[in-house]
Amino acid sequence: MTDAPFPPPGDKAALEHGAALTPRFDANGLVAAVATHAETGEILMLAWMNAEALRLTLDTGEAHYFSRSRGALWKKGETSGQIQKVRELLVDCDQDAVWIKVLPQGDGGACHTGARSCFYRVWRDGRLVEQT
Amino acid sequence: MTDAPFPPPGDKAALEHGAALTPRFDANGLVAAVATHAETGEILMLAWMNAEALRLTLDTGEAHYFSRSRGALWKKGETSGQIQKVRELLVDCDQDAVWIKVLPQGDGGACHTGARSCFYRVWRDGRLVEQT
Repeated sequence: MTDAPFPPPGDKAALEHGAALTPRFDANGLVAAVATHAETGEILMLAWMNAEALRLTLDTGEAHYFSRSRGALWKKGETSGQIQKVRELLVDCDQDAVWIKVLPQGDGGACHTGARSCFYRVWRDGRLVEQT
Repeated sequence: MTDAPFPPPGDKAALEHGAALTPRFDANGLVAAVATHAETGEILMLAWMNAEALRLTLDTGEAHYFSRSRGALWKKGETSGQIQKVRELLVDCDQDAVWIKVLPQGDGGACHTGARSCFYRVWRDGRLVEQT
Protein backbone atom coordinates (compact mmCIF):
# COMPACT_ATOMS: atom_id res chain seq x y z
CA MET A 1 0.00 0.00 0.00
CA THR A 2 1.53 3.25 -1.14
CA ASP A 3 0.40 6.74 -0.24
CA ALA A 4 -0.87 7.39 -3.76
CA PRO A 5 -2.19 4.15 -5.20
CA PHE A 6 -3.99 5.86 -8.07
CA PRO A 7 -2.87 8.65 -10.42
CA PRO A 8 -4.53 12.02 -9.84
CA PRO A 9 -7.58 12.78 -12.01
CA GLY A 10 -6.77 14.35 -15.36
CA ASP A 11 -8.85 16.74 -17.43
CA LYS A 12 -12.44 16.10 -18.41
CA ALA A 13 -11.53 14.10 -21.50
CA ALA A 14 -9.11 11.88 -19.60
CA LEU A 15 -11.57 11.45 -16.78
CA GLU A 16 -14.43 10.45 -19.06
CA HIS A 17 -12.63 8.53 -21.78
CA GLY A 18 -9.15 7.72 -20.54
CA ALA A 19 -7.94 4.21 -19.86
CA ALA A 20 -6.52 5.20 -16.48
CA LEU A 21 -8.45 4.61 -13.31
CA THR A 22 -8.13 7.96 -11.53
CA PRO A 23 -10.87 7.96 -8.90
CA ARG A 24 -12.22 11.28 -7.72
CA PHE A 25 -12.32 10.71 -3.99
CA ASP A 26 -14.49 13.19 -2.10
CA ALA A 27 -13.43 15.48 0.74
CA ASN A 28 -13.47 12.46 3.05
CA GLY A 29 -11.35 10.42 0.64
CA LEU A 30 -14.21 8.19 -0.47
CA VAL A 31 -16.02 7.03 -3.57
CA ALA A 32 -19.43 5.38 -3.53
CA ALA A 33 -19.47 1.68 -4.38
CA VAL A 34 -22.51 -0.28 -5.47
CA ALA A 35 -22.40 -4.05 -5.38
CA THR A 36 -24.74 -6.09 -7.53
CA HIS A 37 -25.08 -9.85 -7.65
CA ALA A 38 -23.07 -11.02 -10.65
CA GLU A 39 -25.69 -13.59 -11.57
CA THR A 40 -29.03 -12.02 -10.74
CA GLY A 41 -28.11 -8.37 -11.26
CA GLU A 42 -29.91 -7.24 -8.12
CA ILE A 43 -28.33 -4.50 -6.04
CA LEU A 44 -26.99 -6.02 -2.87
CA MET A 45 -25.58 -2.99 -1.07
CA LEU A 46 -24.18 0.50 -1.36
CA ALA A 47 -21.09 1.36 0.61
CA TRP A 48 -17.89 3.39 0.43
CA MET A 49 -14.31 2.81 -0.58
CA ASN A 50 -11.23 4.85 0.18
CA ALA A 51 -8.13 4.45 -1.97
CA GLU A 52 -6.85 1.55 0.09
CA ALA A 53 -10.16 -0.31 -0.07
CA LEU A 54 -10.39 0.15 -3.83
CA ARG A 55 -6.78 -0.93 -4.31
CA LEU A 56 -7.30 -4.03 -2.18
CA THR A 57 -10.51 -4.84 -4.02
CA LEU A 58 -8.68 -4.71 -7.35
CA ASP A 59 -5.61 -6.56 -6.11
CA THR A 60 -7.34 -9.34 -4.20
CA GLY A 61 -10.54 -9.75 -6.21
CA GLU A 62 -12.52 -9.52 -2.98
CA ALA A 63 -14.55 -6.47 -1.98
CA HIS A 64 -13.11 -4.13 0.62
CA TYR A 65 -14.93 -1.06 1.87
CA PHE A 66 -14.41 1.82 4.25
CA SER A 67 -16.85 2.13 7.11
CA ARG A 68 -17.89 5.74 7.59
CA SER A 69 -19.34 5.01 11.03
CA ARG A 70 -16.31 3.12 12.27
CA GLY A 71 -13.78 5.15 10.29
CA ALA A 72 -11.97 1.98 9.31
CA LEU A 73 -11.14 -0.26 6.38
CA TRP A 74 -13.41 -3.24 6.25
CA LYS A 75 -13.15 -6.46 4.30
CA LYS A 76 -16.67 -7.57 3.53
CA GLY A 77 -17.35 -10.99 4.99
CA GLU A 78 -14.35 -11.11 7.27
CA THR A 79 -16.58 -11.90 10.22
CA SER A 80 -19.87 -12.82 8.49
CA GLY A 81 -18.37 -15.08 5.86
CA GLN A 82 -20.18 -13.05 3.19
CA ILE A 83 -16.98 -12.51 1.22
CA GLN A 84 -17.71 -10.87 -2.12
CA LYS A 85 -15.78 -12.32 -5.04
CA VAL A 86 -15.52 -9.55 -7.60
CA ARG A 87 -16.31 -10.61 -11.16
CA GLU A 88 -16.20 -7.16 -12.73
CA LEU A 89 -15.52 -3.56 -11.68
CA LEU A 90 -16.90 -0.58 -13.58
CA VAL A 91 -16.43 3.12 -13.01
CA ASP A 92 -18.78 5.94 -13.87
CA CYS A 93 -18.22 8.88 -16.22
CA ASP A 94 -16.68 11.23 -13.68
CA GLN A 95 -14.99 8.47 -11.70
CA ASP A 96 -16.55 9.19 -8.34
CA ALA A 97 -18.48 5.93 -8.14
CA VAL A 98 -17.72 2.29 -8.82
CA TRP A 99 -19.97 -0.64 -9.55
CA ILE A 100 -18.80 -4.10 -8.63
CA LYS A 101 -20.49 -7.28 -9.78
CA VAL A 102 -19.92 -9.85 -7.09
CA LEU A 103 -20.57 -13.41 -6.10
CA PRO A 104 -21.42 -13.42 -2.39
CA GLN A 105 -19.89 -16.33 -0.51
CA GLY A 106 -21.01 -17.84 2.79
CA ASP A 107 -24.78 -17.84 3.03
CA GLY A 108 -25.02 -15.84 -0.19
CA GLY A 109 -26.37 -12.75 1.49
CA ALA A 110 -24.97 -9.26 1.85
CA CYS A 111 -26.92 -7.54 4.61
CA HIS A 112 -26.20 -7.63 8.32
CA THR A 113 -29.96 -7.90 8.97
CA GLY A 114 -30.04 -11.34 7.39
CA ALA A 115 -31.68 -10.12 4.21
CA ARG A 116 -30.05 -11.13 0.98
CA SER A 117 -29.87 -7.51 -0.19
CA CYS A 118 -29.73 -4.40 1.96
CA PHE A 119 -32.54 -3.02 -0.22
CA TYR A 120 -35.35 -5.16 1.17
CA ARG A 121 -37.90 -2.38 1.57
CA VAL A 122 -39.87 -0.64 -1.12
CA TRP A 123 -41.84 2.59 -0.82
CA ARG A 124 -45.52 1.85 -1.44
CA ASP A 125 -48.51 4.10 -0.70
CA GLY A 126 -46.57 6.29 1.69
CA ARG A 127 -44.83 3.60 3.69
CA LEU A 128 -41.94 1.16 3.53
CA VAL A 129 -42.92 -2.42 2.84
CA GLU A 130 -40.54 -5.31 3.37
CA GLN A 131 -40.04 -7.64 0.46
CA THR A 132 -38.97 -11.23 0.74
CA MET B 1 -41.61 21.96 0.77
CA THR B 2 -41.26 22.12 4.53
CA ASP B 3 -38.05 22.39 6.48
CA ALA B 4 -38.36 18.84 7.75
CA PRO B 5 -39.99 16.73 5.06
CA PHE B 6 -39.02 13.45 6.70
CA PRO B 7 -39.25 12.33 10.34
CA PRO B 8 -35.91 12.03 12.14
CA PRO B 9 -34.35 8.54 12.18
CA GLY B 10 -35.50 6.35 15.06
CA ASP B 11 -33.63 3.61 16.84
CA LYS B 12 -31.96 0.72 15.08
CA ALA B 13 -35.11 -1.41 15.00
CA ALA B 14 -37.20 1.41 13.55
CA LEU B 15 -34.49 2.28 11.07
CA GLU B 16 -34.12 -1.27 9.84
CA HIS B 17 -37.66 -2.56 10.06
CA GLY B 18 -39.97 0.39 10.50
CA ALA B 19 -42.50 1.46 7.90
CA ALA B 20 -41.43 5.10 8.10
CA LEU B 21 -39.01 6.54 5.60
CA THR B 22 -36.52 8.36 7.82
CA PRO B 23 -33.45 8.94 5.63
CA ARG B 24 -30.09 9.30 7.33
CA PHE B 25 -28.69 12.28 5.47
CA ASP B 26 -24.94 12.70 5.85
CA ALA B 27 -23.08 15.77 7.15
CA ASN B 28 -23.76 17.45 3.81
CA GLY B 29 -27.46 16.60 3.97
CA LEU B 30 -27.27 13.93 1.29
CA VAL B 31 -28.07 10.29 0.68
CA ALA B 32 -26.66 8.27 -2.21
CA ALA B 33 -29.13 7.38 -4.94
CA VAL B 34 -28.65 4.63 -7.50
CA ALA B 35 -30.85 4.57 -10.56
CA THR B 36 -31.37 1.37 -12.49
CA HIS B 37 -33.34 0.88 -15.67
CA ALA B 38 -36.75 -0.49 -14.63
CA GLU B 39 -36.83 -2.87 -17.58
CA THR B 40 -33.24 -4.03 -18.09
CA GLY B 41 -32.01 -3.74 -14.49
CA GLU B 42 -28.73 -2.13 -15.53
CA ILE B 43 -27.32 0.60 -13.32
CA LEU B 44 -27.72 3.90 -15.12
CA MET B 45 -26.14 6.33 -12.69
CA LEU B 46 -25.23 7.08 -9.12
CA ALA B 47 -25.99 10.51 -7.75
CA TRP B 48 -27.10 12.29 -4.59
CA MET B 49 -30.35 13.49 -3.10
CA ASN B 50 -30.96 15.99 -0.35
CA ALA B 51 -34.28 15.99 1.49
CA GLU B 52 -35.90 18.25 -1.07
CA ALA B 53 -34.76 16.13 -4.01
CA LEU B 54 -36.02 12.95 -2.36
CA ARG B 55 -39.33 14.58 -1.46
CA LEU B 56 -39.81 15.85 -5.01
CA THR B 57 -38.88 12.45 -6.42
CA LEU B 58 -41.55 10.79 -4.28
CA ASP B 59 -44.18 13.47 -4.88
CA THR B 60 -43.72 13.89 -8.64
CA GLY B 61 -42.65 10.40 -9.65
CA GLU B 62 -39.71 11.91 -11.52
CA ALA B 63 -36.13 11.73 -10.30
CA HIS B 64 -34.62 14.79 -8.68
CA TYR B 65 -31.05 14.94 -7.45
CA PHE B 66 -28.70 17.33 -5.74
CA SER B 67 -25.57 18.29 -7.63
CA ARG B 68 -22.58 18.28 -5.31
CA SER B 69 -20.46 20.23 -7.80
CA ARG B 70 -23.08 22.89 -8.44
CA GLY B 71 -24.53 22.83 -4.95
CA ALA B 72 -28.03 22.88 -6.37
CA LEU B 73 -31.20 20.86 -6.75
CA TRP B 74 -31.40 19.27 -10.15
CA LYS B 75 -34.30 17.68 -11.96
CA LYS B 76 -32.86 14.97 -14.16
CA GLY B 77 -33.71 15.60 -17.79
CA GLU B 78 -34.83 19.17 -17.38
CA THR B 79 -32.44 20.26 -20.12
CA SER B 80 -31.48 16.92 -21.69
CA GLY B 81 -34.96 15.48 -21.90
CA GLN B 82 -33.73 12.38 -20.07
CA ILE B 83 -36.50 12.61 -17.48
CA GLN B 84 -36.54 9.57 -15.25
CA LYS B 85 -40.02 8.22 -14.50
CA VAL B 86 -39.73 6.40 -11.20
CA ARG B 87 -41.37 2.97 -11.11
CA GLU B 88 -40.17 1.95 -7.67
CA LEU B 89 -38.11 3.37 -4.81
CA LEU B 90 -36.30 1.20 -2.30
CA VAL B 91 -34.25 2.13 0.73
CA ASP B 92 -31.39 0.23 2.32
CA CYS B 93 -31.13 -1.22 5.82
CA ASP B 94 -29.72 1.87 7.51
CA GLN B 95 -31.60 4.32 5.27
CA ASP B 96 -28.60 6.21 3.93
CA ALA B 97 -29.06 5.09 0.35
CA VAL B 98 -31.97 4.78 -2.04
CA TRP B 99 -32.42 2.71 -5.17
CA ILE B 100 -34.82 3.96 -7.81
CA LYS B 101 -35.98 1.88 -10.75
CA VAL B 102 -36.65 4.29 -13.58
CA LEU B 103 -37.81 4.54 -17.16
CA PRO B 104 -35.56 7.09 -18.88
CA GLN B 105 -37.45 9.35 -21.27
CA GLY B 106 -36.07 11.33 -24.20
CA ASP B 107 -33.38 9.36 -25.97
CA GLY B 108 -33.51 6.69 -23.26
CA GLY B 109 -30.04 7.48 -21.95
CA ALA B 110 -28.86 8.73 -18.61
CA CYS B 111 -25.29 9.97 -19.10
CA HIS B 112 -24.19 13.43 -20.20
CA THR B 113 -21.47 11.79 -22.32
CA GLY B 114 -24.09 10.27 -24.60
CA ALA B 115 -23.67 6.80 -23.17
CA ARG B 116 -26.82 5.01 -22.09
CA SER B 117 -25.38 4.35 -18.62
CA CYS B 118 -22.73 6.36 -16.81
CA PHE B 119 -20.99 3.05 -16.13
CA TYR B 120 -19.64 2.45 -19.62
CA ARG B 121 -16.12 1.47 -18.62
CA VAL B 122 -14.97 -1.77 -17.11
CA TRP B 123 -11.62 -2.49 -15.46
CA ARG B 124 -9.80 -5.14 -17.45
CA ASP B 125 -6.12 -6.10 -17.22
CA GLY B 126 -5.14 -2.94 -15.46
CA ARG B 127 -6.99 -0.45 -17.60
CA LEU B 128 -10.45 0.94 -18.25
CA VAL B 129 -12.13 -0.38 -21.36
CA GLU B 130 -15.20 1.29 -22.86
CA GLN B 131 -18.18 -0.92 -23.49
CA THR B 132 -20.87 -0.29 -26.01
